[in-house]
Amino acid sequence: MIALISFILFLFCSFSFQASALDFCVADKALPVGPNGFSCKDPKKVTVDDFVFSGLDTPANTTNLFKFGFKPVFDTQLPGLNSLGFSIARVDVEKGSVVPIHSHPGVSEITLLLEGQVSFGFISSDNTVYQKSFVKGEVFVVPPGLLHFAINEGNSSGSAVQGFSSSSPPVQVLDLALFQSNLASSVIASSTLLNIDEVKRLKGVFKGTEYMAKHGHDAPDDADVVLIPTVSNNCLDMFLKDQLAYHS
Amino acid sequence: MIALISFILFLFCSFSFQASALDFCVADKALPVGPNGFSCKDPKKVTVDDFVFSGLDTPANTTNLFKFGFKPVFDTQLPGLNSLGFSIARVDVEKGSVVPIHSHPGVSEITLLLEGQVSFGFISSDNTVYQKSFVKGEVFVVPPGLLHFAINEGNSSGSAVQGFSSSSPPVQVLDLALFQSNLASSVIASSTLLNIDEVKRLKGVFKGTEYMAKHGHDAPDDADVVLIPTVSNNCLDMFLKDQLAYHS
Amino acid sequence: MIALISFILFLFCSFSFQASALDFCVADKALPVGPNGFSCKDPKKVTVDDFVFSGLDTPANTTNLFKFGFKPVFDTQLPGLNSLGFSIARVDVEKGSVVPIHSHPGVSEITLLLEGQVSFGFISSDNTVYQKSFVKGEVFVVPPGLLHFAINEGNSSGSAVQGFSSSSPPVQVLDLALFQSNLASSVIASSTLLNIDEVKRLKGVFKGTEYMAKHGHDAPDDADVVLIPTVSNNCLDMFLKDQLAYHS
Amino acid sequence: MIALISFILFLFCSFSFQASALDFCVADKALPVGPNGFSCKDPKKVTVDDFVFSGLDTPANTTNLFKFGFKPVFDTQLPGLNSLGFSIARVDVEKGSVVPIHSHPGVSEITLLLEGQVSFGFISSDNTVYQKSFVKGEVFVVPPGLLHFAINEGNSSGSAVQGFSSSSPPVQVLDLALFQSNLASSVIASSTLLNIDEVKRLKGVFKGTEYMAKHGHDAPDDADVVLIPTVSNNCLDMFLKDQLAYHS
Amino acid sequence: MIALISFILFLFCSFSFQASALDFCVADKALPVGPNGFSCKDPKKVTVDDFVFSGLDTPANTTNLFKFGFKPVFDTQLPGLNSLGFSIARVDVEKGSVVPIHSHPGVSEITLLLEGQVSFGFISSDNTVYQKSFVKGEVFVVPPGLLHFAINEGNSSGSAVQGFSSSSPPVQVLDLALFQSNLASSVIASSTLLNIDEVKRLKGVFKGTEYMAKHGHDAPDDADVVLIPTVSNNCLDMFLKDQLAYHS
Amino acid sequence: MIALISFILFLFCSFSFQASALDFCVADKALPVGPNGFSCKDPKKVTVDDFVFSGLDTPANTTNLFKFGFKPVFDTQLPGLNSLGFSIARVDVEKGSVVPIHSHPGVSEITLLLEGQVSFGFISSDNTVYQKSFVKGEVFVVPPGLLHFAINEGNSSGSAVQGFSSSSPPVQVLDLALFQSNLASSVIASSTLLNIDEVKRLKGVFKGTEYMAKHGHDAPDDADVVLIPTVSNNCLDMFLKDQLAYHS
Repeated sequence: MIALISFILFLFCSFSFQASALDFCVADKALPVGPNGFSCKDPKKVTVDDFVFSGLDTPANTTNLFKFGFKPVFDTQLPGLNSLGFSIARVDVEKGSVVPIHSHPGVSEITLLLEGQVSFGFISSDNTVYQKSFVKGEVFVVPPGLLHFAINEGNSSGSAVQGFSSSSPPVQVLDLALFQSNLASSVIASSTLLNIDEVKRLKGVFKGTEYMAKHGHDAPDDADVVLIPTVSNNCLDMFLKDQLAYHS
Repeated sequence: MIALISFILFLFCSFSFQASALDFCVADKALPVGPNGFSCKDPKKVTVDDFVFSGLDTPANTTNLFKFGFKPVFDTQLPGLNSLGFSIARVDVEKGSVVPIHSHPGVSEITLLLEGQVSFGFISSDNTVYQKSFVKGEVFVVPPGLLHFAINEGNSSGSAVQGFSSSSPPVQVLDLALFQSNLASSVIASSTLLNIDEVKRLKGVFKGTEYMAKHGHDAPDDADVVLIPTVSNNCLDMFLKDQLAYHS
Repeated sequence: MIALISFILFLFCSFSFQASALDFCVADKALPVGPNGFSCKDPKKVTVDDFVFSGLDTPANTTNLFKFGFKPVFDTQLPGLNSLGFSIARVDVEKGSVVPIHSHPGVSEITLLLEGQVSFGFISSDNTVYQKSFVKGEVFVVPPGLLHFAINEGNSSGSAVQGFSSSSPPVQVLDLALFQSNLASSVIASSTLLNIDEVKRLKGVFKGTEYMAKHGHDAPDDADVVLIPTVSNNCLDMFLKDQLAYHS
Repeated sequence: MIALISFILFLFCSFSFQASALDFCVADKALPVGPNGFSCKDPKKVTVDDFVFSGLDTPANTTNLFKFGFKPVFDTQLPGLNSLGFSIARVDVEKGSVVPIHSHPGVSEITLLLEGQVSFGFISSDNTVYQKSFVKGEVFVVPPGLLHFAINEGNSSGSAVQGFSSSSPPVQVLDLALFQSNLASSVIASSTLLNIDEVKRLKGVFKGTEYMAKHGHDAPDDADVVLIPTVSNNCLDMFLKDQLAYHS
Repeated sequence: MIALISFILFLFCSFSFQASALDFCVADKALPVGPNGFSCKDPKKVTVDDFVFSGLDTPANTTNLFKFGFKPVFDTQLPGLNSLGFSIARVDVEKGSVVPIHSHPGVSEITLLLEGQVSFGFISSDNTVYQKSFVKGEVFVVPPGLLHFAINEGNSSGSAVQGFSSSSPPVQVLDLALFQSNLASSVIASSTLLNIDEVKRLKGVFKGTEYMAKHGHDAPDDADVVLIPTVSNNCLDMFLKDQLAYHS
Repeated sequence: MIALISFILFLFCSFSFQASALDFCVADKALPVGPNGFSCKDPKKVTVDDFVFSGLDTPANTTNLFKFGFKPVFDTQLPGLNSLGFSIARVDVEKGSVVPIHSHPGVSEITLLLEGQVSFGFISSDNTVYQKSFVKGEVFVVPPGLLHFAINEGNSSGSAVQGFSSSSPPVQVLDLALFQSNLASSVIASSTLLNIDEVKRLKGVFKGTEYMAKHGHDAPDDADVVLIPTVSNNCLDMFLKDQLAYHS
């Protein structure tokens, strides 16, 4: 009962602050989320640490199929970013690595290459490719929502800092959307014109160990595929962990 | 010289109106375009016809690979829509038709099925599929920028009215972005893990007759592919015309 | 006590999700509403049905004074629309029907006539009328917030699909604002220059049966008028139900 | 020819500045207008006077039917306001004056009463009246786009300062929209249920002297009414001048 | 226990309203605050008083160092202003008064001088001063976020009405930010190049009586300064009360 | 004449493109600037280079009073950033360097420290200092428009990448606004309470060599100070060049 009451008091306290969002609206993850981001933390409880994030000096984990890593600094990681409309991230690409084709729905991206030689490209909605090879110190902009990719063309690993025009940019990775979701193989085939055998092969590649244990390399039918939990968070980090498990 | 002077006078006139955008900002396609849309037509020259569009009673042309048609009513077609932040369109799906996987970067879509039985679906960025079969009178919402598709599941053609949360929504069709663009086959293969032979086959499918004449069914190398002009407008209508030519 | 605790646990659960609004912010009507719409439903509980609405194939109820019907598909009816900035509706106009002069404060409207012959018009703030007669397949745009109306000019009923540039567009019907509100007759008369007898007559028309029973046809004084409950929801649907009761 | 060339050079100059909009975007009325306001004046030519307006110390002209006056300080009058999203105005109400029912499509209003005793009110879209009597030093807010009005209840004239949430707020005055526009009397009658004789009487009131000379007090048919020029600018000031001419 | 239950019921009630924000979103200060302002009060509980503020007819308290007063009418004072994007205030400047250099981060300001002769100025980010002397009835605009100030140049007190392009505009007063905050004197000196003795003198001026009692006129070292509570609210009103206490 | 005609034809061409802003709106610096950025370059002329910037691998010039350097990558430098709402920059701080107190009106900043040990801080509008010492790989957020600064606390130079929530963020450097502008010393003194001798000393420091030559170390009167051109661009780069000249 005491826990109950103290919870309620806590709830009451967390609701009783009166201050409007003035200088900032630091994310309070315990309060409701609205269309424009998290509710604001009581300004009296905000400290400098709400505006600080550590750890972008070490590479992101690249132990996955595509051999690239991604460390986001979004509002979830850095509460002071809430509603400010931008965020950053670190990307690492091993030698031979590819950042698979993906888009950030509604969000623009800017990339500063810090190390390596990497080809970046995006495809506009009239199907023109804007692609170029980059070296250290060069910057590339991807307009909002367009499909884009990167290929490590150098003889060593590369790393980059990225900026996004949202404090919580979604990431839609083409292969995961098609082959790690529970989208029926027949639907994928007919809505992309990909050969259904190729679809099933890629479903096998992206479904992970459990699936493989049960079905072997080629996916027989879509009805069975749902048993493997899909990625529960849309952050690429999750994808990496998932893939890592798959290979170990 | 007279034409020159009259052109200049025309230019002068079109710049000399002083009115601010009050009730509306009808698109003046002869003036510069800004980040939020066309410049405003001189209000004195605006008539009721700037707010009118005709022709959504007849089906869109469906003579293409996917057997679907799309008639946009965007700001280009209906100047009074400029900067209002929404637009509509008519979609027709023949029996057996599929609307291929695509996204509208940054834009939401709502569909009201008027005729037929059609399955609509979208994939969220955590790779969950939200899909359902629809009949006449039912409505489906696709959140901004996510990949989505439709499949005519009925025994007859279907038609729908769509709304978009932009007056000039871009359309990025996955197959066209990958296989009708000049993106190198090797890049496509490595950034999607698709088999390169499958990539080349689909490049053949989407490149059209000229390409076929020269290369036969399988695309040998990417360097050659650029000779076929890509779709010059990002409207799906263009795609249809393009595909139509390809089949005739 | 158990109910109490389970309610609190429920409350706790509904607050403890941490996810930011990424792909969508489906309306959770049990959480606080903010300036930009409803709070977001826990993404884990979102299903495809949150993006689906059924029933636009049958006409809206037209049993009212103006013989028109309106079926909204706003965020209240379709939670997936929350904060997406658009919505749709179906409008039905019987033979002889009129959609009375009204405005959508801050919101634009687009209408696609599906059946019938209807004259649509809006009045700009410089008192110019933009009006035209429409047939099936034609589209009409009304800029944000302006007074507009429709008149069924054909020999049969008509129906239309409408789009709005808001997911919860308000509707201010001129007659209801003036004559169904508790605005004093003397205020209406002096601020419109309408004859006070005409004002009282229309107050009688719009106040409904209860008022009529007590006061007869002409409204004696404004002080008495308040007893009849005004429309409790600003949706036109409400207006129709209200009017229906009045006539039965 | 010299004039031509110098015009072109002028044109060239006015286009050749490169600066982005940084601190401000002062209205350049000679350049195209976009959905968000005027193009920006070359920052090098901006002076302090672009941010200054004089003359709100004297009352606005109140010689009109409603005996109220309105002096706008919008972006047209004060170029430095362009795109800043707010503006102000002065309102004067003579003894016995009424500010007729009107709305500002999409725009909120705040009023500070400086002198007098005035009743302000607005009607929400669920037909509730929010009305109160105000004295010097009191402030009233009208939410965006709703119908509102004011009545001088005191024994002397009153004056107020107003703020608007737009740098070029439109004004739609109900009586002018209905009775000074070229909207057909029959359309007004059927879309408001006003008696057609009352409609014609008010058309006579608002059409002015020329109309009266030709037609007498009651408007015979709408076809004839168009000959009197409607208000050419949507500023209330214009309305006042118009009404003034009517009475002299 | 009864209090507990009734609190929970209260909580439940305050969460159970379903209405979306339609016409307005009046601030409910007991609910969470989001990036765009307060949550919306249950529309059923909104009254006309939510749109009313009284007391701008009397001068603001000017008993402070700079001899100016400021009475804000923001969303905290006037809940109906929530999320409308503007607000107003009254400013009073005694003879010899100065409004110290300050900025409103992200917010524009418009000032109408009602009485007196006052010089207003702002400094653009290219370090140009836009300054002018104003008399009664003149209006001055300050673009968003720029440093600005005012000086009473007349022989009497002055008063002005101000508008802001935010319903809760922050105020950053240069002197308070530098000398009333707990910013180390050495940091101030090195980041402004001000002489450290001058920095310490001004720290003494702005720290108030408690500080003075302990340290005398010159601030010895920064480590000690923190004991005096800084201004707990970012409204200038607070500053005035603070200063008032300092002088009494 | 030929040049004239070809200029006109050029003008005509640059105006005759019809495409709306779909995927991107690359800055065309020869067309008018609007409140939301540059007009859009004809999409047909856009190349991948419009999305590319080179040169962030080398340090910015730090030869100035404060020994820090700033290399902006804004829309002026990278046209593809136009209207995307973000930008980046490189900052270099020599040993002993300070980034002087400044603000970005209306714009947020995020900083990733790449090398060195630097203390970053901002002051909120309630005069609280949020300051911390950072090492390589750490990230700091400054909310929009607040005063902030940095101090190199390490034994070597430092460098950082910054992101801004605007594609053309203004920079208002406190010292330059006060002491390099033509703001009268007496105005500075009275609106900051700084000792006038200290004001004049700093005016001398920031006015540069010409001023020094004429007046010696202390500024006698403000009237004379205007002869030295103020910084003509609000980019910090300009400041650096200016300061560099001053020292050489």
